[in-house]
Amino acid sequence: MPSPQAGQVVVKIEASGLCHTDIHAARGDWPVKPKMPLIPGHEGVGHVVEVGPGDSLVQVGDRVALPWLGHACGHCRYCVGGSETYCLTPQYMGYTMDGSYADYTLAYASHVVKIPDSVSWIDAAPITCAGVTTYKAVKVARPQPGETAMIVGIGGLGHMALQYANIFGATTIAVDVEDEKLQLAKDLGAAHVIDGRGNQGEELAALGGVDVAIVTVPSPAAMLAAHESLNPQGRLVLVGLPADNRFELPVFETVLKGISVIGSLVGTRNDLLECFALHASGRTRVVTETRRLEDVNECFDEVLSGRVPARLVFDMT
Amino acid sequence: MPSPQAGQVVVKIEASGLCHTDIHAARGDWPVKPKMPLIPGHEGVGHVVEVGPGDSLVQVGDRVALPWLGHACGHCRYCVGGSETYCLTPQYMGYTMDGSYADYTLAYASHVVKIPDSVSWIDAAPITCAGVTTYKAVKVARPQPGETAMIVGIGGLGHMALQYANIFGATTIAVDVEDEKLQLAKDLGAAHVIDGRGNQGEELAALGGVDVAIVTVPSPAAMLAAHESLNPQGRLVLVGLPADNRFELPVFETVLKGISVIGSLVGTRNDLLECFALHASGRTRVVTETRRLEDVNECFDEVLSGRVPARLVFDMT
Amino acid sequence: MPSPQAGQVVVKIEASGLCHTDIHAARGDWPVKPKMPLIPGHEGVGHVVEVGPGDSLVQVGDRVALPWLGHACGHCRYCVGGSETYCLTPQYMGYTMDGSYADYTLAYASHVVKIPDSVSWIDAAPITCAGVTTYKAVKVARPQPGETAMIVGIGGLGHMALQYANIFGATTIAVDVEDEKLQLAKDLGAAHVIDGRGNQGEELAALGGVDVAIVTVPSPAAMLAAHESLNPQGRLVLVGLPADNRFELPVFETVLKGISVIGSLVGTRNDLLECFALHASGRTRVVTETRRLEDVNECFDEVLSGRVPARLVFDMT
Amino acid sequence: MPSPQAGQVVVKIEASGLCHTDIHAARGDWPVKPKMPLIPGHEGVGHVVEVGPGDSLVQVGDRVALPWLGHACGHCRYCVGGSETYCLTPQYMGYTMDGSYADYTLAYASHVVKIPDSVSWIDAAPITCAGVTTYKAVKVARPQPGETAMIVGIGGLGHMALQYANIFGATTIAVDVEDEKLQLAKDLGAAHVIDGRGNQGEELAALGGVDVAIVTVPSPAAMLAAHESLNPQGRLVLVGLPADNRFELPVFETVLKGISVIGSLVGTRNDLLECFALHASGRTRVVTETRRLEDVNECFDEVLSGRVPARLVFDMT
Repeated sequence: MPSPQAGQVVVKIEASGLCHTDIHAARGDWPVKPKMPLIPGHEGVGHVVEVGPGDSLVQVGDRVALPWLGHACGHCRYCVGGSETYCLTPQYMGYTMDGSYADYTLAYASHVVKIPDSVSWIDAAPITCAGVTTYKAVKVARPQPGETAMIVGIGGLGHMALQYANIFGATTIAVDVEDEKLQLAKDLGAAHVIDGRGNQGEELAALGGVDVAIVTVPSPAAMLAAHESLNPQGRLVLVGLPADNRFELPVFETVLKGISVIGSLVGTRNDLLECFALHASGRTRVVTETRRLEDVNECFDEVLSGRVPARLVFDMT
Repeated sequence: MPSPQAGQVVVKIEASGLCHTDIHAARGDWPVKPKMPLIPGHEGVGHVVEVGPGDSLVQVGDRVALPWLGHACGHCRYCVGGSETYCLTPQYMGYTMDGSYADYTLAYASHVVKIPDSVSWIDAAPITCAGVTTYKAVKVARPQPGETAMIVGIGGLGHMALQYANIFGATTIAVDVEDEKLQLAKDLGAAHVIDGRGNQGEELAALGGVDVAIVTVPSPAAMLAAHESLNPQGRLVLVGLPADNRFELPVFETVLKGISVIGSLVGTRNDLLECFALHASGRTRVVTETRRLEDVNECFDEVLSGRVPARLVFDMT
Repeated sequence: MPSPQAGQVVVKIEASGLCHTDIHAARGDWPVKPKMPLIPGHEGVGHVVEVGPGDSLVQVGDRVALPWLGHACGHCRYCVGGSETYCLTPQYMGYTMDGSYADYTLAYASHVVKIPDSVSWIDAAPITCAGVTTYKAVKVARPQPGETAMIVGIGGLGHMALQYANIFGATTIAVDVEDEKLQLAKDLGAAHVIDGRGNQGEELAALGGVDVAIVTVPSPAAMLAAHESLNPQGRLVLVGLPADNRFELPVFETVLKGISVIGSLVGTRNDLLECFALHASGRTRVVTETRRLEDVNECFDEVLSGRVPARLVFDMT
Repeated sequence: MPSPQAGQVVVKIEASGLCHTDIHAARGDWPVKPKMPLIPGHEGVGHVVEVGPGDSLVQVGDRVALPWLGHACGHCRYCVGGSETYCLTPQYMGYTMDGSYADYTLAYASHVVKIPDSVSWIDAAPITCAGVTTYKAVKVARPQPGETAMIVGIGGLGHMALQYANIFGATTIAVDVEDEKLQLAKDLGAAHVIDGRGNQGEELAALGGVDVAIVTVPSPAAMLAAHESLNPQGRLVLVGLPADNRFELPVFETVLKGISVIGSLVGTRNDLLECFALHASGRTRVVTETRRLEDVNECFDEVLSGRVPARLVFDMT
């Protein structure tokens, strides 16, 4: 059990979601490397069980979430400017700090986020990353009620993105290649559902084209198809990271249509609070399957194989 | 001499700039093809000499510019929304309509733009496309006085972009690979000048990185270098069209830094009026070399060879 | 029956809503005076029965709405900029042009707006002004899903404003002083309902304060109460016009909280199209009572007395 | 000499500007009362001479400014959202904390702002409040290069506002009622200068009207005159606080023109850093008169009498 310093807390983890990023972290896949040895996990939620010396923003017994942004400096241009996720000296849970695949995790009191009592542990965990990441992606895309928003991939990220795009008032279009996911999209309130195995381009054109596209699958082909479907002044938001880190952007169409391609990284503490508040008021639904933490390696395989219909959450209560 | 219908005017061309687009038009280089046979030219300026039947927004004797956007419908979602350059049924001067490489050109009264008396023909011509295109590129990039704006390529487009970025209050950084252009950038008020033949990345980092990058050269390598220099929440504006229409966007950096890549196409009538007003009040300077229209083919070669230090303008007075 | 010129159409009116503005117009209450004699009415909807000479954007048989903005020039700074409602030379239906309290009304083809087949005449009429006016008020207030939006007055304007604020994702708070209206607000999906006869300030504070307030009643006292409830960076949108044209703005609170007070006037053709599309997709409900046009004077009295629970619509089919 | 706790520093004050707010603070004029007894002063600048225990963002010897926002929590919705000046639990220098009319002042290391070496103490002091306050006022008004920005009152606040509006690219209009101030406005680069003793309305109309108005004088009459001069979609920014706290807002004109009235309170640490950077690069000029701190009471009288042509700064080196 870790020992908290001033400004830190110890959290007894009750649930932790499995995010693709955890697999990349465990394997050191990305240009920026994680700490080693590493305890992964950045969708952890639980009770505060110990508080470091001095005043604290949270108290023993508080229900909190431990998001990807484990700490931000609070003083750099980005923190002061309201964009703490782009802090110049950030700490990331399960990457530069040990994460939530553990019974007890050390966290910064300033950057854990309180969870309303009415939100269950199992729901809270995926909101902590999959939720807030797609919420922010929708926010930066600024969809208007008079616009269409297409969500490509209705998995762990996409099924949340779809609901947030509905909340922002857009006419939503869900695209997937599996019947089960298409049915889920309908159940979650998609205005239109398109089978990506068919002639997606024609169907999108018949709906008046796409104003906002959020691509949650790490596939350059999906990004390109989304780009092609965009209306003038359309916005393509990228949240997934393709293996070879390249998307061949068609410059001619980008310029002639005045398209924006926007990267978006997780969300701030405000964003996560808003996600929890939306869930507490019954406006979102989280689709999960629970697992035991000791099966984490099988779960990694399961996710990599693409067989998982929803977010996996380790139930650690 | 063409005969104007209701809503049209005939303009006696006094000067017409040579834009790279004219060469692409003449050669049919792009996916969307121009009318054939075609009179190119979309930086024409001149006197109205005849007005079609009915009421007209302009009168015989008015000094007007004939920009790329020859006509927009006024009724589609984009026209009503303030984005007429993305009109669903546009007409383009020197592409879908005959342009200004002629003594007399037919134009729509609604879409010619009046030129203040104090702006010379030779200055007005490049403002009509090179000016308004880069003005709009700066506008969509929204540089703030606390930010840096890098202009890559200080040629016909870039030397205007640099001045507009100064007007928007950014701390400007001009990048080029020729001594003459670097000197021009200094003369035009660049806060910093960087020789692209040196270690551009290091110098940019020393200046605090780049918040806004406007790449006026149609080179994927220049786009990539600009992308790499961007700060978090940086914006890369594309106005040039590379020959193979591909820019390999680094997705990882785009997402982690929250970067936006934004296409921008010319500007509206408002934008062009603003460009003329800025010039009339002495806030911009246009660098040109004049040529005779009968030398147009030699001029095409001259531009393609990259030997031209500034915008070529056909003096037709 | 009027005779259309080029660009005009004649519309057989099928329904026309009664807006408070019609009463002001008929009485010449405002600083800017209407034409005299005047046929009021700017919530008219009906079939196009005749089209003026030349090409036309609409055809005989089209179902169209005739909104307050009867015509805009299409060429001034505001029209080109996407804000045609602030056109420098506008025409207003039922004010500078004859309106829709008539069997047949002359209108400009460019500024009538098509109505989807699934939207009834009786619903379409109030959307044409009450709907689009409040839709635009919500739009300029830019409420975010993490914010609260308070609608003051749940009458003809307010019951639409409430639904639009829901569509934009805000947590809505409806305020009225009549039980019937409070019940209506609940039925229309208000997240919170507050009785304005009680201690409004305390209840609003308990909900976390107000981020956006839209005051649809022309009462300076209501405007002031709304202003007092605002959070930092709150936005107060004014759409109603009090008789004495004065609202005593508290400057100290405005500055210390960084509050914005924003005037909003009707909406553009785009906005009205969006309102019709939202209604066609089942996302709004219009509460009306129908009347006969010959009872217009009694209806004026009825509206002025404040006895009307909903928008009055003249059924003229 | 005060003793710093963790997170605090002691600053040897070298200069401190006299802001009208100091007089209000000393007199307890406002609804929210200052601490008593109180050392006023929130334009203090000086050297850090002692640092509290623990890590610190600043070091002994650093040149720093002590702005109005003495401390913000860093964790509330406004701090996280980039609007720390609207923090829910703020500390204000010279109001809720002792200020800079003293040899040594205690401050929070997190909220002092570093001053570039090339900025003199006497210039730095007024930038610390008059500068950043008007910089922020211009920022929230979002003037565009194609727009006019009118600054009413060319005193301590106004002469800075004028220069910032120029930097943002607007066509500036300076209004004052004294010849000396009008001459100063010309010297500082105002595009147009208007004598408020003449027919201001007519002259403004001849310039095409006003898009942005920043009223730095605490006069409801000046606010009303500025409001009347606004174009459609114009923005009136309030920074001055009239004695009776009331501005009779004309609702009809606000609605019909779509006007916004915006309150603005000082600026964030980012804003102040930007102001210092602009000054260091030679883009602003600060007009001051120096005084001795022991003459503070005479200075209060001087300011209240309106005889002061510029910002008074106590030279304490």
